[in-house]
Amino acid sequence: MHVRNGPARQRAWERRLELPLLIASPLFLACYAVLVLVHRADPVWHDVALAWLLLIWTLFTVDYGVRLLLSGQGPRFVRTHWLDTIVLVLPLLRPLRIVNTYVALQRRRGRPRLSLYGRVMAYAGVTAALLTFAAALAVLQQERDAPGATIRTFGDSVWWACSAITTVGYGDVTPVTPWGRTFAVALMICGLALLGAVTGSFSSWLIQVFGREDQERAPDTGKGSPGSENSPGTPSRRP
Amino acid sequence: MHVRNGPARQRAWERRLELPLLIASPLFLACYAVLVLVHRADPVWHDVALAWLLLIWTLFTVDYGVRLLLSGQGPRFVRTHWLDTIVLVLPLLRPLRIVNTYVALQRRRGRPRLSLYGRVMAYAGVTAALLTFAAALAVLQQERDAPGATIRTFGDSVWWACSAITTVGYGDVTPVTPWGRTFAVALMICGLALLGAVTGSFSSWLIQVFGREDQERAPDTGKGSPGSENSPGTPSRRP
Amino acid sequence: MHVRNGPARQRAWERRLELPLLIASPLFLACYAVLVLVHRADPVWHDVALAWLLLIWTLFTVDYGVRLLLSGQGPRFVRTHWLDTIVLVLPLLRPLRIVNTYVALQRRRGRPRLSLYGRVMAYAGVTAALLTFAAALAVLQQERDAPGATIRTFGDSVWWACSAITTVGYGDVTPVTPWGRTFAVALMICGLALLGAVTGSFSSWLIQVFGREDQERAPDTGKGSPGSENSPGTPSRRP
Amino acid sequence: MHVRNGPARQRAWERRLELPLLIASPLFLACYAVLVLVHRADPVWHDVALAWLLLIWTLFTVDYGVRLLLSGQGPRFVRTHWLDTIVLVLPLLRPLRIVNTYVALQRRRGRPRLSLYGRVMAYAGVTAALLTFAAALAVLQQERDAPGATIRTFGDSVWWACSAITTVGYGDVTPVTPWGRTFAVALMICGLALLGAVTGSFSSWLIQVFGREDQERAPDTGKGSPGSENSPGTPSRRP
Repeated sequence: MHVRNGPARQRAWERRLELPLLIASPLFLACYAVLVLVHRADPVWHDVALAWLLLIWTLFTVDYGVRLLLSGQGPRFVRTHWLDTIVLVLPLLRPLRIVNTYVALQRRRGRPRLSLYGRVMAYAGVTAALLTFAAALAVLQQERDAPGATIRTFGDSVWWACSAITTVGYGDVTPVTPWGRTFAVALMICGLALLGAVTGSFSSWLIQVFGREDQERAPDTGKGSPGSENSPGTPSRRP
Repeated sequence: MHVRNGPARQRAWERRLELPLLIASPLFLACYAVLVLVHRADPVWHDVALAWLLLIWTLFTVDYGVRLLLSGQGPRFVRTHWLDTIVLVLPLLRPLRIVNTYVALQRRRGRPRLSLYGRVMAYAGVTAALLTFAAALAVLQQERDAPGATIRTFGDSVWWACSAITTVGYGDVTPVTPWGRTFAVALMICGLALLGAVTGSFSSWLIQVFGREDQERAPDTGKGSPGSENSPGTPSRRP
Repeated sequence: MHVRNGPARQRAWERRLELPLLIASPLFLACYAVLVLVHRADPVWHDVALAWLLLIWTLFTVDYGVRLLLSGQGPRFVRTHWLDTIVLVLPLLRPLRIVNTYVALQRRRGRPRLSLYGRVMAYAGVTAALLTFAAALAVLQQERDAPGATIRTFGDSVWWACSAITTVGYGDVTPVTPWGRTFAVALMICGLALLGAVTGSFSSWLIQVFGREDQERAPDTGKGSPGSENSPGTPSRRP
Repeated sequence: MHVRNGPARQRAWERRLELPLLIASPLFLACYAVLVLVHRADPVWHDVALAWLLLIWTLFTVDYGVRLLLSGQGPRFVRTHWLDTIVLVLPLLRPLRIVNTYVALQRRRGRPRLSLYGRVMAYAGVTAALLTFAAALAVLQQERDAPGATIRTFGDSVWWACSAITTVGYGDVTPVTPWGRTFAVALMICGLALLGAVTGSFSSWLIQVFGREDQERAPDTGKGSPGSENSPGTPSRRP
């Protein structure tokens, strides 16, 4: 299954599809939103959105397949490009690649990249935001017509999703249907893990920034302080 | 209390009982679920489930006792095999051993094991899931017939348990009986600790993965990249 | 303010009062509980409890004052013995010293002490439990007779406090009076910090245990296993 | 854009405005509180508060502009003084500088500064408290006159904000207007990150304190105590 000159062709392919994919990602999200929100009210828009949705998904699948072939890795590709694989199955998370593209752009221009913590926060935060949006749509679709439901508008649904992912959970609006609750549990568990990563990274980053400030305010302690700003070997604060 | 040739016989015993115990664990859980869910509706099933429950528990106790004797450690065994001891007292957590068996299988086949963080997440996550299931059953048993109860079906109970263990706590369904609330408090405290371990490990793992990606994408910076942002001692995944 | 032979006399004083103080601590808590729970129903018990409460508090103050004098540290004592100072002002947290006494006893018998994480978990966990108990009593005292209150019995109050300290917050019973809400906010903030310490330590301890298990199961990899996945500097528990 | 003798003049400027700014910060917060709380009831106070609000904001802007010019850094100043920039846009967070001033005062007197964790906790904690206060005011302004609102008084609003920032979320009082909910989501997300930093730092500090206590109680184990359970590289605070 090895493809001749795979890596070079793979890179060429990736560059050619970068812009189309970048545009397609938010479009996919928008189509799903239209699909849910105009539900029954407007059959034409509904069908248009559905058609675009399937079209874009096909594009994603083709892109993934071509890159799998060109990589010459076979099934290992699924594991080494785990982020791409997740994003293929759950295309609502696709806009996550925007962070990726931003990082790649910064590197091409020779700019310093985001720090490690910054990237973790960006990925986990954007994933959490997309999950919230997707869960709000999915739960709304289930709840809207259920008897006794408290989630009736998209506003309610977003408000519920935000209070669920931050684990606040007011309970003024809650899903009542089995599927709505299933999506809710998925959102709560993923949200817990993702926001745990965001707050953990934010906390580590804050401690790093404060530690660095110490050094900058004490420039008389010698030159440059070669000790990295990482956690191990944290520069001693002695005069 | 030392048994001749203990370690060898212990290993033989463990191998022989591996499969029966592996099957018995989910069976135990299923019996408890049947016991709670058919409650009064079907006395025959109730009695069958109860009989199996006690039978399997006896099997677990015998297995533990034999291994304690063969180990020749005496009372120290209780402490060195703390996981086995917990699992003996709370057999609902027994299926936890599935992770153990999976790890052992992988090792026998020479496959790389799950990483440290992966194992912590697997254990803590599976324990949390089992606790949620067990608490949902136990609370349902208490609440079902209480006046003014909001937890009346197994669906309500699972929904409540999920919102409790993630500390979201909507409050649309809550236990009202003293025993239901006691189980709820136990679930909330254990859940907090276990999910804290899961999110903490997930966060550390994410930072590790992102740090490793840095190294793989920058192979031109020389070998070993001493300035890597990884936590120290992180095992590199390269062959 | 230096006292001759202070340290020796201080130690003698501490030994002499160890047992009385150990008994007085839960007694103080019990008196406060009686004071709150029998409220109005039984004036005799109320007055007895109040008298004992003040008596024990006086004992605590005298003990603190004597130790401050004997230490010869003057005002610095307040800062170096911060735990004792907190416990003097909030005697409900006094039973916290039980952990201290247990640790001291273990040391005298030459037993290995609790590990670092174990002690953090014990202190933070016991403090959280005592805070919960104290907050449940204090909030009950405020809410009991308020119009529209949902916290009417001690059971409700404990259930509310447990759901508040774990940040679950169901909202089926909530304080409605200004003072009740003030105590609730104090409980939520302290609980967040303390349970954060408990779950953080539990998580670190779990990772340590799993890392140590790795070493014990792979004794053939040579001595010391420098590539251990433990956090660096973790003391091995081997004899 | 380089200013002659910039650093010296910058320092002189900062010293001259230290006291006025220190007074202006809580004044700004007080003016906003007056503006919200007397709303419509008293037009005179309302206008006076508004005038002071704008006056103080102008003072802040002038101070920022002068320091930007004197620094000679140009646009880089915005990034290197990120805290000042945030505080300019959201002046409600201005009192945050009190921590800064306290730290500066301590340094001038030669006192040891707050530890790294202490400063992170102080900054994040004070920011969280100010955010809570500001969100309580902003949400009250939106909700007060909304039909079906449960947040009607400042007491309700503060109670809601406290339960939101600690992620408890009772749900007895919740915002119902779109803008009220938007502020609520902002508060929940910021609160999660900030309180995560506070609890994380508290946890690390607690482990540090317990680890240090070990060393102090075991002075007979020789100097340096290589078996210390501290995290590696923790700087000892001794002179």
